[in-house]
Amino acid sequence: MQVTASAHRVHLFSPSSSPALSLPSAKHCRCRYRNAAATTVRMGLREDGPSVAVVGVTGAVGQEFLRVLSDRDFPYRNIRLLASRRSAGKRLTFEDREYTIEELRPESFEGIDIALFSAGGSISKEFGPVAVERGSIVVDNSSAFRMVPEVPLVIPEVNPGAMAHINLKGRSGKGALIANPNCSTIICLMAATPLHRHAKVVRMVVSTYQAASGAGAAAMEELLQQTHEVLDGKQPTCKIFKQQYAFNLFSHNAAVLSNGYNEEEMKLVKETRKIWNDMDVKVTATCIRVPVMRAHAESVNLQFEKPLDEDTARRILEGAAGVTVIDDRIQSLSYALGCHPDVRMHYLHVSNKDDVAVDDRQDLPQDGNQGLDIFVCGDQIRKGAALNAIQIAEKLL
Amino acid sequence: MQVTASAHRVHLFSPSSSPALSLPSAKHCRCRYRNAAATTVRMGLREDGPSVAVVGVTGAVGQEFLRVLSDRDFPYRNIRLLASRRSAGKRLTFEDREYTIEELRPESFEGIDIALFSAGGSISKEFGPVAVERGSIVVDNSSAFRMVPEVPLVIPEVNPGAMAHINLKGRSGKGALIANPNCSTIICLMAATPLHRHAKVVRMVVSTYQAASGAGAAAMEELLQQTHEVLDGKQPTCKIFKQQYAFNLFSHNAAVLSNGYNEEEMKLVKETRKIWNDMDVKVTATCIRVPVMRAHAESVNLQFEKPLDEDTARRILEGAAGVTVIDDRIQSLSYALGCHPDVRMHYLHVSNKDDVAVDDRQDLPQDGNQGLDIFVCGDQIRKGAALNAIQIAEKLL
Ligand SMILES: NC(=O)c1ccc[n+]([C@@H]2O[C@H](COP(=O)([O-])OP(=O)(O)OC[C@H]3O[C@@H](n4cnc5c(N)ncnc54)[C@H](OP(=O)(O)O)[C@@H]3O)[C@@H](O)[C@H]2O)c1
Ligand SMILES: NC(=O)c1ccc[n+]([C@@H]2O[C@H](COP(=O)([O-])OP(=O)(O)OC[C@H]3O[C@@H](n4cnc5c(N)ncnc54)[C@H](OP(=O)(O)O)[C@@H]3O)[C@@H](O)[C@H]2O)c1
Repeated sequence: MQVTASAHRVHLFSPSSSPALSLPSAKHCRCRYRNAAATTVRMGLREDGPSVAVVGVTGAVGQEFLRVLSDRDFPYRNIRLLASRRSAGKRLTFEDREYTIEELRPESFEGIDIALFSAGGSISKEFGPVAVERGSIVVDNSSAFRMVPEVPLVIPEVNPGAMAHINLKGRSGKGALIANPNCSTIICLMAATPLHRHAKVVRMVVSTYQAASGAGAAAMEELLQQTHEVLDGKQPTCKIFKQQYAFNLFSHNAAVLSNGYNEEEMKLVKETRKIWNDMDVKVTATCIRVPVMRAHAESVNLQFEKPLDEDTARRILEGAAGVTVIDDRIQSLSYALGCHPDVRMHYLHVSNKDDVAVDDRQDLPQDGNQGLDIFVCGDQIRKGAALNAIQIAEKLL
Repeated sequence: MQVTASAHRVHLFSPSSSPALSLPSAKHCRCRYRNAAATTVRMGLREDGPSVAVVGVTGAVGQEFLRVLSDRDFPYRNIRLLASRRSAGKRLTFEDREYTIEELRPESFEGIDIALFSAGGSISKEFGPVAVERGSIVVDNSSAFRMVPEVPLVIPEVNPGAMAHINLKGRSGKGALIANPNCSTIICLMAATPLHRHAKVVRMVVSTYQAASGAGAAAMEELLQQTHEVLDGKQPTCKIFKQQYAFNLFSHNAAVLSNGYNEEEMKLVKETRKIWNDMDVKVTATCIRVPVMRAHAESVNLQFEKPLDEDTARRILEGAAGVTVIDDRIQSLSYALGCHPDVRMHYLHVSNKDDVAVDDRQDLPQDGNQGLDIFVCGDQIRKGAALNAIQIAEKLL
């Protein structure tokens, strides 16, 4: 079903309710998204679609869920928009219909076929099993269940087989859990996996350049506010992060473990092994926050078991789903551009892109063509979170 | 000779001349430097000191030359301040004396013992040999002579022996050339060399997070201006860089070579080999500009020939000259903070520091304790450029 775009379509919040929601970053993205959108809209509301719930709908990822559902014409019979008590009662327009945000409760999952969770790990831990108990298939964006052996951890382009046994038709009473990998893992493996399939990665050294968006809508706002403050000669307000973020960089804010690595770094190590089903692959990571808004970038050095020359690598990447190869390195790196309110041109380049952008170079001093340096950028709210989850949901239909 | 600081001491430019010089970033740093400085000042003006020239004195590095000369009580009989015709005639106060900036000419080197060059590669290529011909020992900050086999490429803490044959007393008529390595190389090798001496680095994978300052004072100003513009919803002005820098990151702006690496990356490869005098060490680098003002950071993965456990590595680093080990990784990374006009507190943490800060972790999946991940931050104008050059000059005395 294709209809012409209405001006309201991507005004996710109705104008009257949006000022009350202090989510300026999400709001900015929304505005710009509207301008960037194609003029033809497909609406997913249809009787034969599943009943969908979005948990954490007011957040950075939750907002993106709605955009991606709409962009991809995801079919739904009805949609329930859930958040905390703080947001309950606020109104929100999605695909030309007005909805009221409801407070998340156990009963929220009554009759829900697919529940898209992105309200943090503790909410997932508490409500994920409740939803499963009530028959929903949960696609969870948090880290709560990723390393649970029986929970599939899925990037649809990489390991769709891991969730082959789960779908809507085959359900009998109980639902199921599927975990969405961490954004850095998704972006890295989108580019590394096609090469891995060809020449087997034995070792991967990752250094990340991570955006504010990875820490949620409030972190994006903090970066914006701090930048204003620093330019005005004021002390920057630090609420989300412990130190100044504007014009600074620092180790990812995840907890540091006894081995010196932080949790974000260990996610890259452990999730890669689970997704590739390869406990021997050697992965090490250094995760750094840089003062950009929305897209993550990663410098990845790969060592292979078999030789792989640069031309073959490029051909493999060019043929890979969800990957765009950028020849001009400077262009590719512009993909990491943050989603700033008024830089539409750049926003168009970047933050609404589904693909990850990758640039590759033969790791020169490595013996026998067995090394490659790749630089990958991806919209971490989109492919790093919402898009990947909805691609998983599409496989359930 | 120790005197009490005068309020003017680090007002390098006299107030009347500074507005005409459009170097706000350098100006800001200068003001803040004054506040950060100790109250006791040592002045280096003395009859038995060498005659010194600073080429490119109005630039980001040139300004830092003056600060470091003053900070370290570098002895000088007289000092000649050189820049382009644009700056000639402007007046500048240094250690309580007023100087007139002169236009760089061949005659500028008449009677000069030590010439500190930082006015770009083409100026070095043109005037370096002229200065040597006239008897000056040139310490050059550009890349012009770094890879010339007979020119020593020196980090004083790392390979002082390479310049052992050059000093002021042993000169006979002709001068000599000594090259200062690239800032990324200096910062990386300050931390990697002590470990290399102990366990021999066989492979080094570097990903950089480079500041605006590496592209000079005008680049710092561009980042500042663009950030204002982007926040105001204006199109960012791109003069130094081809694309938006504010809230963005991109591949280092050096020319991309046919092998896909850019010149900055290849400097890390080639300079490391020359400085370590080890043509076999495998180095690969990915150099990225991030929107911070002044300090570079580098994520470095090291593979060693011999085992090296994390505790030993830490002890080695703690004993290394010019290196500060930071236990708390988040703190260490705050070192990368840019030098912004009004963030004195942070500026004190960072940008006036001589040492590079390093944090280390055992590269987990590497066999037999033969890997280490280090994260190094350093003030790239100071240790990455001016300080290193002046340490070289001190060895000439
Ligand atoms: N950001 C990313 O790109 C990304 C990527 C991968 C995974 N994730 C994961 O996705 C989750 C959300 O991330 P985000 O960036 O969207 O965060 P966010 O912008 O801070 O949004 C958090 C959302 O959770 C809701 N929430 C908070 N407490 C709640 C409660 N007690 N009950 C119900 N809802 C509650 C919030 O609702 P209110 O507005 O009502 O408070 C909001 O909708 C996190 O687990 C994160 O790790 C995020
Ligand atoms: N920035 C760093 O941290 C760093 C680190 C290592 C090495 N270096 C190298 O040091 C050099 C300068 O860097 P920077 O960052 O200080 O650049 P900058 O801030 O742009 O300053 C350039 C300096 O060169 C002078 N200059 C330009 N053209 C000249 C000419 N025709 N004759 C005489 N002087 C001239 C300028 O004088 P006017 O003001 O009169 O134009 C200014 O003093 C470069 O070669 C750079 O690669 C820099």
